[in-house]
Amino acid sequence: MPAYKAPLRDTRFLLNEVLDFPAHYQRLVNGSDATPDMVDAILGECAKFSEEVLSPLNQQGDEQGCTWDQGEVRTPKGFKEAYAAYVAGGWQGLSHPVEYGGQGLPMSLGLLKSEMMATANWSFTMYPGLSLGAMNTLMQHGSEAQKQAYLTPLTEGRWTGTMCLTEPQCGTDLGQVKTRAEANADGSYALTGTKIFISSGEHDLAENIVHIVLARLPDAPKGTRGISLFIVPKFLANPDGSLGARNGVSCGSLEHKMGIHGNATCVMNFDGATGFLIGPANKGLECMFTFMNTARIGTALQGLAHAELSYQGALAYALERRSMRALSGTKEPTQIADALIHHGDVRRMLLTQKAIAEGGRALIYLASQHADKMIEGLLKNDDRQYQHWDDQLGFLTPILKGCLTELGLEAANLGMQVFGGHGYIQEHGMEQIVRDARISTLYEGTTGIQALDLLGRKVLMMSKGKAVFEFTKPIARFALELLKNEPAMRLRALTLLKIVAQWNYLTLRLAFAASRQRDIVSTACHDFLMYSGYATLAWAWAQQEAVARRKLREGGSESADFYKAKLATSDFYFQRLLPRAKGHASAMLKPVKSTMQLDQAHFAFE
Amino acid sequence: MPAYKAPLRDTRFLLNEVLDFPAHYQRLVNGSDATPDMVDAILGECAKFSEEVLSPLNQQGDEQGCTWDQGEVRTPKGFKEAYAAYVAGGWQGLSHPVEYGGQGLPMSLGLLKSEMMATANWSFTMYPGLSLGAMNTLMQHGSEAQKQAYLTPLTEGRWTGTMCLTEPQCGTDLGQVKTRAEANADGSYALTGTKIFISSGEHDLAENIVHIVLARLPDAPKGTRGISLFIVPKFLANPDGSLGARNGVSCGSLEHKMGIHGNATCVMNFDGATGFLIGPANKGLECMFTFMNTARIGTALQGLAHAELSYQGALAYALERRSMRALSGTKEPTQIADALIHHGDVRRMLLTQKAIAEGGRALIYLASQHADKMIEGLLKNDDRQYQHWDDQLGFLTPILKGCLTELGLEAANLGMQVFGGHGYIQEHGMEQIVRDARISTLYEGTTGIQALDLLGRKVLMMSKGKAVFEFTKPIARFALELLKNEPAMRLRALTLLKIVAQWNYLTLRLAFAASRQRDIVSTACHDFLMYSGYATLAWAWAQQEAVARRKLREGGSESADFYKAKLATSDFYFQRLLPRAKGHASAMLKPVKSTMQLDQAHFAFE
Repeated sequence: MPAYKAPLRDTRFLLNEVLDFPAHYQRLVNGSDATPDMVDAILGECAKFSEEVLSPLNQQGDEQGCTWDQGEVRTPKGFKEAYAAYVAGGWQGLSHPVEYGGQGLPMSLGLLKSEMMATANWSFTMYPGLSLGAMNTLMQHGSEAQKQAYLTPLTEGRWTGTMCLTEPQCGTDLGQVKTRAEANADGSYALTGTKIFISSGEHDLAENIVHIVLARLPDAPKGTRGISLFIVPKFLANPDGSLGARNGVSCGSLEHKMGIHGNATCVMNFDGATGFLIGPANKGLECMFTFMNTARIGTALQGLAHAELSYQGALAYALERRSMRALSGTKEPTQIADALIHHGDVRRMLLTQKAIAEGGRALIYLASQHADKMIEGLLKNDDRQYQHWDDQLGFLTPILKGCLTELGLEAANLGMQVFGGHGYIQEHGMEQIVRDARISTLYEGTTGIQALDLLGRKVLMMSKGKAVFEFTKPIARFALELLKNEPAMRLRALTLLKIVAQWNYLTLRLAFAASRQRDIVSTACHDFLMYSGYATLAWAWAQQEAVARRKLREGGSESADFYKAKLATSDFYFQRLLPRAKGHASAMLKPVKSTMQLDQAHFAFE
Repeated sequence: MPAYKAPLRDTRFLLNEVLDFPAHYQRLVNGSDATPDMVDAILGECAKFSEEVLSPLNQQGDEQGCTWDQGEVRTPKGFKEAYAAYVAGGWQGLSHPVEYGGQGLPMSLGLLKSEMMATANWSFTMYPGLSLGAMNTLMQHGSEAQKQAYLTPLTEGRWTGTMCLTEPQCGTDLGQVKTRAEANADGSYALTGTKIFISSGEHDLAENIVHIVLARLPDAPKGTRGISLFIVPKFLANPDGSLGARNGVSCGSLEHKMGIHGNATCVMNFDGATGFLIGPANKGLECMFTFMNTARIGTALQGLAHAELSYQGALAYALERRSMRALSGTKEPTQIADALIHHGDVRRMLLTQKAIAEGGRALIYLASQHADKMIEGLLKNDDRQYQHWDDQLGFLTPILKGCLTELGLEAANLGMQVFGGHGYIQEHGMEQIVRDARISTLYEGTTGIQALDLLGRKVLMMSKGKAVFEFTKPIARFALELLKNEPAMRLRALTLLKIVAQWNYLTLRLAFAASRQRDIVSTACHDFLMYSGYATLAWAWAQQEAVARRKLREGGSESADFYKAKLATSDFYFQRLLPRAKGHASAMLKPVKSTMQLDQAHFAFE
């Protein structure tokens, strides 16, 4: 398993040189504490914790997995101590309100923290990650008493949380949820049903676990409009905050799965478990979806995380392993053969990983700024601000969750590929990254669901195509500035303008076609999603290149090599990866018939 | 784990309607026994064995894996009995000479057999599969005495074989092989060294194992020209064929790997093991490569196998699992939701798998005809015939091994994706297919090596681009016939002609560029390989479509639905998958610089 090294130079480049986080934080109402010094100190501490505590537990977490015994779940060796250190470091409440035990820093800092920890050890980071989902739901929809009782111990990390949505018969289609909630005399509810795929559903890291559960009231309407949201703690909380009786919720078994073995994926049985309604009755799905965008950005992170870790492993191997001679002539005459990195096809793989990781990082950081501004809108009760940034983030989210996890999986596979046959062997850890990455395109909404969310919901239904227009405006503006001020990037600017025009054109064509034939949304959405991803990454790379060129022109920097590497990687992205968008642009406009005509009975013959 | 059902209708379509195997066999000197009735009987028996014996062992083989104890290796439960049944059925010698215990049928029948068994249980099928490599090497390079001693028990399946190439320091770069072979007084050699990644290196299926080993004589030249080939049996053979003394070769350990758990991947230690030279001294690599094309077609098969099995699993799930309503309106009003197959994006995934599996099958069968004709050239001592078909097969091989395994892995991943979160759970068996498929792009030459072999060796070095011209001639001829005789396929014909022109144009451009800058071969080869794969699949689909259209026009067939499904799948391929070739065509011509310019020290910064 590659030892994780936090890419702090790249993080600082994006924060300070490309996206101007210092100015961004100065402008935020809750950003005054996020001074450059403070941010830098947090990054340094987080890198240290990720590299020294979490990274060494990653491979053994996979090997040992979690074990179930009579409903109790034991996490892999070292996880408990690491979680205690995590809590002691105050990491869980970084971006949550001071009045509930947090540090009140902007949301984006929480995401920066998550990036490093997640890259070092995804399975571990899912435990506090799921808590965030529960915390955010409580924060926005819980009563003040509920916040006091549950949000504070969650923010402090003493308790952890889960999101209990999926049932055996439904995941995507939550209207099929069957878990029942019946009113008790005291105003609480008794929940009965089975939830599956509950990440971090049971474990030995914390004294209590707060489940946020989707269930149905006895008189609820059918389908999605009859789902309510409940708090179901593992141990009921006494009024003084101490733990009370064990509640009727238990882990029936652990799933045996392809990867993320260090995280417990639980079947959770609710046997008349006591629950407390959060938010209005029958509005559970709406409440749940409020923070969906930020939760999905948290999963998009997985694309970045696995691309980065696999890149670090593959790069080290490519520098060290020697095989054959370079095509253009011997590069290391004193060695028995040249290092892999001298071979063009190995460089193609490494640069693809690098372009995905660094391009994805830029987009995740951009999204985190959007999230900061959206949350500021909430804090200031500024509905227009909230709505504007929620829309921006809402457009970017399925692109990142959908496309970045697909590309992250590709990058993880390329890292294995650089190792040749050794990549298939467990001890090197490269195949673990692929197995861990494989879940990212499945949970928190599959790639297909992201694609439908983007094209069907965000682009066509909610905005009649205007979302693409709004999103591409700053890209066009940026490209026009490049044309004016950066002659060396003239071709890049023209490429970006072409993408802006094509993206809007494709959207109009699809909107028109969908008005006559609704199915085109489902036959075109995957290609539209991937096209959008490559287009957005092109923007991210052009931005990085523009800054690097300016810095190089200004001269005198110790980082000249770093900037030149940005130029080279941008070059690779535009020349070698962006062309894939052509295929997607072409495929998405094809007749619906080519996908829909085959009768379901005729997909196979004996 | 999906239960395997042999797709006999598709196999018969390709054999009898598209590729006219009956006429092909009639023309072959060793084809007279392969009458249509005989072929059909073999297919039926093989389907039965694959479905009833091998398929049920596939998942438990993964769960149990192989175990090592003091050098002995135990295969998963049931493998031993299945192998005995395989031997009793005479399957191993199907396509090998009668005089060495085989049935003397054409090579292609052996490949058809392997396809079904491999799809049902890849890990099992690797045991007899590796024997084939040893058998083919012995047949072409062994002395008559060696053939009598080793080839006969291998052909009968009483013994199995391996290919011992890789060592810890080298896999691709076999010039680095260190295993030493020192002459004994009796004309044999004593081999000392360590080989790794030896598939089927040790097991409990057969009484003896014949290792074909690459090693270096004491006075051998450095590099690839100093490698010789040796037979090293686990038990030495007595003159009467009975087993003699245990030889000094043993399994040091088993590798822990991502998948193919049912197959033993061994570290093999040679401690002065007795070996016998095959072929001329220092010509071992050349001998080894003689049958490389057919061995690689055997691995290309894995792309087809995993695409097919994953498709079968995903299709069954898509017909049964219900989620949401179709975009164009409710399809199953009496159900709680519509089956997955009514959703466009699920159909996209299924049709991608289907197009890969059935298109890949057509190409594998075509390659098997080439192999028959090449081998006939050998049998008839017709050097021109041998050379011609060796060239044709040599061009097709890296395309199939390289591109079809990449697409097979994609198809396996799509099958998991259709299952949503359930795809990640081991019990469904879909993730096993992905883990098993993952090795296929790594062993028997990585995808990068196939790409270099295709563009660098076969296209540019050996033929100066003429290989593409030769290979595309029948495609152009076919397209021109379509234009004349099949008005409904006018657009397909024009697309094919455009591909032929573009493929040749790209080759010329690359040849010209490579004459000035050798590195372009390594920066362009991956895109060239994938482009070639999509182009070749387009040909395969157009051929199938043309036959299906003719049959439908002739009317009266019970198979009308089958032919219509071919039309629909061809439509999908041309409209939705072939556009990917655009991106590859564009990327391969990009300046070398975009891949080669970044200094190796600047791939990462702290």
